[in-house]
Amino acid sequence: MTLVGKKFPSLDVNAMNEMGDTFKINVLEEAVNNNKKVLLFWYPKDFTFVCPTELHAFQAALGEFENRNTVVIGASCDTAEVHFAWLNTAKDNGGIEGVTYPLLADSNRNLSSILGILDITNEVYDEATDSVQVEGDNVTYRATYLIDEEGTVFHEGINHMPVGRNVNEYIRLIDAYTHVQEKGEVCPANWEEGKEA
Amino acid sequence: MTLVGKKFPSLDVNAMNEMGDTFKINVLEEAVNNNKKVLLFWYPKDFTFVCPTELHAFQAALGEFENRNTVVIGASCDTAEVHFAWLNTAKDNGGIEGVTYPLLADSNRNLSSILGILDITNEVYDEATDSVQVEGDNVTYRATYLIDEEGTVFHEGINHMPVGRNVNEYIRLIDAYTHVQEKGEVCPANWEEGKEA
Amino acid sequence: MTLVGKKFPSLDVNAMNEMGDTFKINVLEEAVNNNKKVLLFWYPKDFTFVCPTELHAFQAALGEFENRNTVVIGASCDTAEVHFAWLNTAKDNGGIEGVTYPLLADSNRNLSSILGILDITNEVYDEATDSVQVEGDNVTYRATYLIDEEGTVFHEGINHMPVGRNVNEYIRLIDAYTHVQEKGEVCPANWEEGKEA
Amino acid sequence: MTLVGKKFPSLDVNAMNEMGDTFKINVLEEAVNNNKKVLLFWYPKDFTFVCPTELHAFQAALGEFENRNTVVIGASCDTAEVHFAWLNTAKDNGGIEGVTYPLLADSNRNLSSILGILDITNEVYDEATDSVQVEGDNVTYRATYLIDEEGTVFHEGINHMPVGRNVNEYIRLIDAYTHVQEKGEVCPANWEEGKEA
Amino acid sequence: MTLVGKKFPSLDVNAMNEMGDTFKINVLEEAVNNNKKVLLFWYPKDFTFVCPTELHAFQAALGEFENRNTVVIGASCDTAEVHFAWLNTAKDNGGIEGVTYPLLADSNRNLSSILGILDITNEVYDEATDSVQVEGDNVTYRATYLIDEEGTVFHEGINHMPVGRNVNEYIRLIDAYTHVQEKGEVCPANWEEGKEA
Amino acid sequence: MTLVGKKFPSLDVNAMNEMGDTFKINVLEEAVNNNKKVLLFWYPKDFTFVCPTELHAFQAALGEFENRNTVVIGASCDTAEVHFAWLNTAKDNGGIEGVTYPLLADSNRNLSSILGILDITNEVYDEATDSVQVEGDNVTYRATYLIDEEGTVFHEGINHMPVGRNVNEYIRLIDAYTHVQEKGEVCPANWEEGKEA
Amino acid sequence: MTLVGKKFPSLDVNAMNEMGDTFKINVLEEAVNNNKKVLLFWYPKDFTFVCPTELHAFQAALGEFENRNTVVIGASCDTAEVHFAWLNTAKDNGGIEGVTYPLLADSNRNLSSILGILDITNEVYDEATDSVQVEGDNVTYRATYLIDEEGTVFHEGINHMPVGRNVNEYIRLIDAYTHVQEKGEVCPANWEEGKEA
Amino acid sequence: MTLVGKKFPSLDVNAMNEMGDTFKINVLEEAVNNNKKVLLFWYPKDFTFVCPTELHAFQAALGEFENRNTVVIGASCDTAEVHFAWLNTAKDNGGIEGVTYPLLADSNRNLSSILGILDITNEVYDEATDSVQVEGDNVTYRATYLIDEEGTVFHEGINHMPVGRNVNEYIRLIDAYTHVQEKGEVCPANWEEGKEA
Amino acid sequence: MTLVGKKFPSLDVNAMNEMGDTFKINVLEEAVNNNKKVLLFWYPKDFTFVCPTELHAFQAALGEFENRNTVVIGASCDTAEVHFAWLNTAKDNGGIEGVTYPLLADSNRNLSSILGILDITNEVYDEATDSVQVEGDNVTYRATYLIDEEGTVFHEGINHMPVGRNVNEYIRLIDAYTHVQEKGEVCPANWEEGKEA
Amino acid sequence: MTLVGKKFPSLDVNAMNEMGDTFKINVLEEAVNNNKKVLLFWYPKDFTFVCPTELHAFQAALGEFENRNTVVIGASCDTAEVHFAWLNTAKDNGGIEGVTYPLLADSNRNLSSILGILDITNEVYDEATDSVQVEGDNVTYRATYLIDEEGTVFHEGINHMPVGRNVNEYIRLIDAYTHVQEKGEVCPANWEEGKEA
Repeated sequence: MTLVGKKFPSLDVNAMNEMGDTFKINVLEEAVNNNKKVLLFWYPKDFTFVCPTELHAFQAALGEFENRNTVVIGASCDTAEVHFAWLNTAKDNGGIEGVTYPLLADSNRNLSSILGILDITNEVYDEATDSVQVEGDNVTYRATYLIDEEGTVFHEGINHMPVGRNVNEYIRLIDAYTHVQEKGEVCPANWEEGKEA
Repeated sequence: MTLVGKKFPSLDVNAMNEMGDTFKINVLEEAVNNNKKVLLFWYPKDFTFVCPTELHAFQAALGEFENRNTVVIGASCDTAEVHFAWLNTAKDNGGIEGVTYPLLADSNRNLSSILGILDITNEVYDEATDSVQVEGDNVTYRATYLIDEEGTVFHEGINHMPVGRNVNEYIRLIDAYTHVQEKGEVCPANWEEGKEA
Repeated sequence: MTLVGKKFPSLDVNAMNEMGDTFKINVLEEAVNNNKKVLLFWYPKDFTFVCPTELHAFQAALGEFENRNTVVIGASCDTAEVHFAWLNTAKDNGGIEGVTYPLLADSNRNLSSILGILDITNEVYDEATDSVQVEGDNVTYRATYLIDEEGTVFHEGINHMPVGRNVNEYIRLIDAYTHVQEKGEVCPANWEEGKEA
Repeated sequence: MTLVGKKFPSLDVNAMNEMGDTFKINVLEEAVNNNKKVLLFWYPKDFTFVCPTELHAFQAALGEFENRNTVVIGASCDTAEVHFAWLNTAKDNGGIEGVTYPLLADSNRNLSSILGILDITNEVYDEATDSVQVEGDNVTYRATYLIDEEGTVFHEGINHMPVGRNVNEYIRLIDAYTHVQEKGEVCPANWEEGKEA
Repeated sequence: MTLVGKKFPSLDVNAMNEMGDTFKINVLEEAVNNNKKVLLFWYPKDFTFVCPTELHAFQAALGEFENRNTVVIGASCDTAEVHFAWLNTAKDNGGIEGVTYPLLADSNRNLSSILGILDITNEVYDEATDSVQVEGDNVTYRATYLIDEEGTVFHEGINHMPVGRNVNEYIRLIDAYTHVQEKGEVCPANWEEGKEA
Repeated sequence: MTLVGKKFPSLDVNAMNEMGDTFKINVLEEAVNNNKKVLLFWYPKDFTFVCPTELHAFQAALGEFENRNTVVIGASCDTAEVHFAWLNTAKDNGGIEGVTYPLLADSNRNLSSILGILDITNEVYDEATDSVQVEGDNVTYRATYLIDEEGTVFHEGINHMPVGRNVNEYIRLIDAYTHVQEKGEVCPANWEEGKEA
Repeated sequence: MTLVGKKFPSLDVNAMNEMGDTFKINVLEEAVNNNKKVLLFWYPKDFTFVCPTELHAFQAALGEFENRNTVVIGASCDTAEVHFAWLNTAKDNGGIEGVTYPLLADSNRNLSSILGILDITNEVYDEATDSVQVEGDNVTYRATYLIDEEGTVFHEGINHMPVGRNVNEYIRLIDAYTHVQEKGEVCPANWEEGKEA
Repeated sequence: MTLVGKKFPSLDVNAMNEMGDTFKINVLEEAVNNNKKVLLFWYPKDFTFVCPTELHAFQAALGEFENRNTVVIGASCDTAEVHFAWLNTAKDNGGIEGVTYPLLADSNRNLSSILGILDITNEVYDEATDSVQVEGDNVTYRATYLIDEEGTVFHEGINHMPVGRNVNEYIRLIDAYTHVQEKGEVCPANWEEGKEA
Repeated sequence: MTLVGKKFPSLDVNAMNEMGDTFKINVLEEAVNNNKKVLLFWYPKDFTFVCPTELHAFQAALGEFENRNTVVIGASCDTAEVHFAWLNTAKDNGGIEGVTYPLLADSNRNLSSILGILDITNEVYDEATDSVQVEGDNVTYRATYLIDEEGTVFHEGINHMPVGRNVNEYIRLIDAYTHVQEKGEVCPANWEEGKEA
Repeated sequence: MTLVGKKFPSLDVNAMNEMGDTFKINVLEEAVNNNKKVLLFWYPKDFTFVCPTELHAFQAALGEFENRNTVVIGASCDTAEVHFAWLNTAKDNGGIEGVTYPLLADSNRNLSSILGILDITNEVYDEATDSVQVEGDNVTYRATYLIDEEGTVFHEGINHMPVGRNVNEYIRLIDAYTHVQEKGEVCPANWEEGKEA
């Protein structure tokens, strides 16, 4: 069942930033305690090729998000150590050097399991080993969540592995939702801030 | 759990078109049998104000979708009779006269229940009436599904009630996915057809 | 099991009137709090053809019911928005313009499920989608309830879809029951007010 | 859940007629095997006062029902022996002498339990006697069923104990349903045979 | 398991007497509260032929039972209304006019179910109607209970339908039990009051 | 639930006769295979005082039972060895010397458990010994069964411990039932063979 | 699981002695309350042939047991009445006249069930009678228990039906155990009091 | 429940003999396949003091047992390696050098668990370790089984730890049982071969 | 329960090597199909500091293992992409450039779950999110498995996170086990190949 | 699941030392209460050949372990009596004379069951004996546990039966872990005290 219209799950998750600090982030509290919107985006794996372009694109638009009172958080199921290695790899070498927003390291899949965005296509009981084995790498699809200042999800979108995201679309969605918050009006299709609703 | 990466559910649903015909649509078969992509979009209710702008916007872009081998289908939980009344209401009166793509009439909620997009925020057992009562109008959020020619979902996105959709973003996603289908490349962030990947 | 001899279920249901107001009605409290009898009648769908004649017939007899201390309430599973659109459609166009009693908008089927009057003829588990799917449009038959001032049901009657109701018969039943309330006598067959019991 | 739109339950029930014959009636087969409609009416108890007037009223209208290809069957939970004693009691003594249609003797409540029309208002487990005890006399309300030639119920109506039935209303309902069967039209409110639909 | 040696079940049951009064009898309290013995006898149905002779025979011996501090109560599963009709039917017409002891009207079978004396020879689940249906008329065998002043059953006897009872045998059993109560001796076979034990 | 109207349970039980033979008796087969009626009577214990008078009384009436095609069988829960010792004890010493009908030795309580005639007034779980302990001596009340040539029970009667039986009453019941078998008439109260029914 | 090393079960059992007194014995309390050892021996049935020789043998050795602070108790599943009859039967007639120690009358098998010494070789569910039937006479094997002053079992031995016991062996076991109690030494094989350990 | 009267369990158990051979013994087959009686005796532990005297005593009487067609088998829960070490320890050093009958090494407790002779006085679930822990050393009491040529147990006896056995008593029991086998007579108390039964 | 003495689980796991090939390894089949021993070692995470020294140490001893017919396989729960990034990181930068044996990428934890070597110290149900959340990073301890040519595990050892392994000890264990395989002798403590056993 | 990173189970186990004292050891408390590390090693059986060399090797290195604040404890499933016999057997005769550290006598397998180190390869339900029988001797593999001063396990290793342990490796592991405790550094592969980390 969709998370839209509900509170984002309250959960502490390991995180890493470009300083090499390891810390915990609770996405819900990030929104509510700081009275900010949050854009949380998941990508499948560190050290792959489509992913860094997305991370760089969100970095490039970071000012736009800040102007809209919005925090950006990236996330994958890799460990904090791997995040740090990637943060220290130059963009030319497929790295994400220069990214300054934090990255969740959901290696125990606590959060991604609740969100239901792991690429597990099947679970089978294996009698020989008396265990349940999963099919898939147990990493996430490209899922994106927009969360308002009260922690309520107002957009969730999930792309299949090979299809990258459009950063401008999220800016449009944030603007539209902010418009509703401020004006109490609904935003019709193709609405954009500054254009007539 | 997300439908991305999985087949869209196979289910016959009542539908209505502008001719007043009532018929059944199976979204999965619509894609697979006709070798087409499908864009399926849900809106909350007929005879409201934000919804018709979305329906008109998709109608306006119908040629773009056809050029991309993509069928457009609208959907709500109203009955076929109500769809027909709305289709016969002039745009100026808040109607959707002029819409030519079919509309699902999921009054029994068979499909929207599977998709998990109904606005039910709670279910409570009421002892007095020995029944389970739901909170919410039991209508859908603004959910959108992009389905490829094999019936696999490659995008799902859900907006909260008051936030309209951006038709161009779906065209971009279809182009990006088609690019992957044809070129076997992944599409980085902000990619657009004709721009260099 | 029949509701006759039992209290009508206590439940708040969305409603719409000809002024376009959306509000909640609790049928049981409508009777008990106002010390009135209630006639509650259900019809399958807005914007169909047999239904408006029934709605107009109850409207025409509204004075008779008021004289008998009886409130009339209509009901279907359409939304309040659809009710309002229909209330604004002229009688000549198949609308119900002129109806002044309130209409329940039981879009979440909370009340109609308890009453057991939905046209669900079967429920089947679909293994492919791991869901229970219903057969039928999930709308109500033509069910009518007569409720006394203490909230006790003293008549329930259900007609198949195509068979309209006879408003005079409900007036006769109300008179007969009132006669019993006042005189403490039972009312034999074919009894009518003013005719000798 | 209502029986309307479903087949009447197939069940053999004891019956008695004015000749003193005891035999079995299966209401469903009575309709299907003879290609007739059936009007089945239940009353609470033999040897009471409101009941005989109903039985005499149906007897008086028997020709009207026959003209409409409709069989009339009465029913209560008394035994066949009691039915026969009542059939042999003169009308002036509160008896039903002169009734010629058969009476079901559902003393084992097999059929009335399925129909859910017994006046059981509660069932309580009594620990002292390790048994479930019912509240109520375990007799039926005034329930009426109209069944078509295929055994499908097209009307069910239930009156509280003291309120008698109107025989003409059933004739109207039969006419209306027959009209639909023959003309394929729905019958609006207050419709009567011979009056314009 | 036999009730002998145990308290008779405590239960209020509808009853009728020759005055037409309807009231409740609790057999256990009838014995304990009044410090009397109770003879409770069940017969299958009102308005049959073997039954009235038994009822008349107990009436004829009523003085003998009173002399022995013993209350007589008859019982069947017919309603109080039917009991009254039978009490008003002359003996020559197969009635029980003249009977003065009360008759239980166990129409809801609360007591006869606990005693296990109903003629139900089988219970079968009927899948078509999703109900349990019983075989038999759901009336009682000819069961007799002798209960002492503390409510303990000291004799239970059950005859098949067509075999009538011998009133003198119950007088003998009461005398024998009273002898044991008074003398503290056991009563050998064929013992009769006044004959040497 | 009463055994009346049902087949007597089919079970082999140890038995002893006055010759000291130990053998098995199946009461049901005793009736059916020999086309005889059976009178089976149970008494609590060998070597007590009220019991031998009953056994002698049945012995004295043995010719009467044989004339009525009826086999007499006694029964208790003592062993065959104890039965034989008692059969060899003179009447003057409280023995039953002279009894020629067989005695069941139901020491394993297989049959008496099914009949539900053991004097167990309670079963309690004892935690200390992790066992269920019974209250009572686990011997039978004075239960009597009359069984017809097809094995159907037509009378069951149970007396409390200290109250002896009346042999003539069983002769009357057999005569009455035989009358019904031969004449197809029911036997009214107090009926006796040779007296007018 | 063996009772050796555990407390003997605490249970009141009916008993009889040569005076004809019926009373209750709790074997555990017999030991603990009187600070005595107890020898409890079970035999299958009264009025058989091998059993009386054992009972006489224990009687003959009663002084030896008393000298060792040991109470002797016999036991079978016969009733107290049967025990008394046997106690009154002369030794020459196969009786046990002269026995002065008490005999348990475990007719309800409460104790023998806990000990697990009944000759039940099978329990089968009989579908026809819906009951569990046992194979075997439900009497005990020749089981013997030696219990110390604290109620702890220090020997249990069970012989098949036809093999009698050796009274001297129990005296040896009591002596050996007493030796351990007094000297704190273990008693090697074949040890006898007075012989060198 | 006692094993007397039942077959000894069929189970292969590790064994050791004085030659140092490790092999399997199935006690039941030892009896049945060789048409011999078996005396199986259990002792608690190797390398203790009371135990070797028992093992030597059985060794000393081995000829007597062979004359009676009886095989002797010793048993404890020690391993075969420990048995061999003890068999190689001189009698003067507390060893069992000179023992020639085989010794079961039931280190996995398969057989002793079935026999119920382990000194486990309690089993407690320990929440901290989520395991069931036993109280006691999990070794056997001094249990002895006499088994006939068909594998049926005709004696079982269990002594508490410190009380040694009497080899002659087992010879007496074997003689008594053989007497019954040959003569078909039961053996009264204190019977000994050659003495008059 | 330990895997020693049992077959290693048969499971296909993703793997990466220094060529950048992604492929599947089934450890059991690696041993059995190639008739080789396998040394499988797990480390917690890529891009940490203690781990690379272990990986380099195994690489340095690779010839020794090959001489002993032993395949070396490393393993962690990182993805194949991360393994490849680490394989391409120079040793001086904390990388593992130069490692030629394959590395399992058990990102879905299928194998590590069966082995029970994940650092999950607790699992708690979180009611707010209706999910089970784990404590720990869900990565493995330093576990090592030695598997023989038939797939049987002959050593398993697990070190806490911060304690590195001793490569020579595994060579000793392989030599000792090979000695047993070849000589059929057991290897005493501290045994080393070439030293006298 | 591995015990590494968790507390060692808290359990009292029987133990024996070279003085012949029997006492209880709780391994966890041995570490925590004395603020010592513990090396606990298990071997399969007393009186075998590979085992004593291991026991002598640990004895020889006892000083090294004491220098490292480490207690050595041996363990098998043999009884304390067998341990004592083995401790009294000269080394030349395969004994362990000279061993001074304590030996656990886990004859009831309470601890080895929790550790999961018993050689049970299968458990099968045997219907004939209604018991679960195990395959294997129910003795332990060569398992070794290193436990720190807080009772946390920092190494567990298990060798198959025939492969002896290397005492020096445990000294290295203790040194490495102590280094981490003192220096807060992780210990890379092949690290040894005094060599550069």
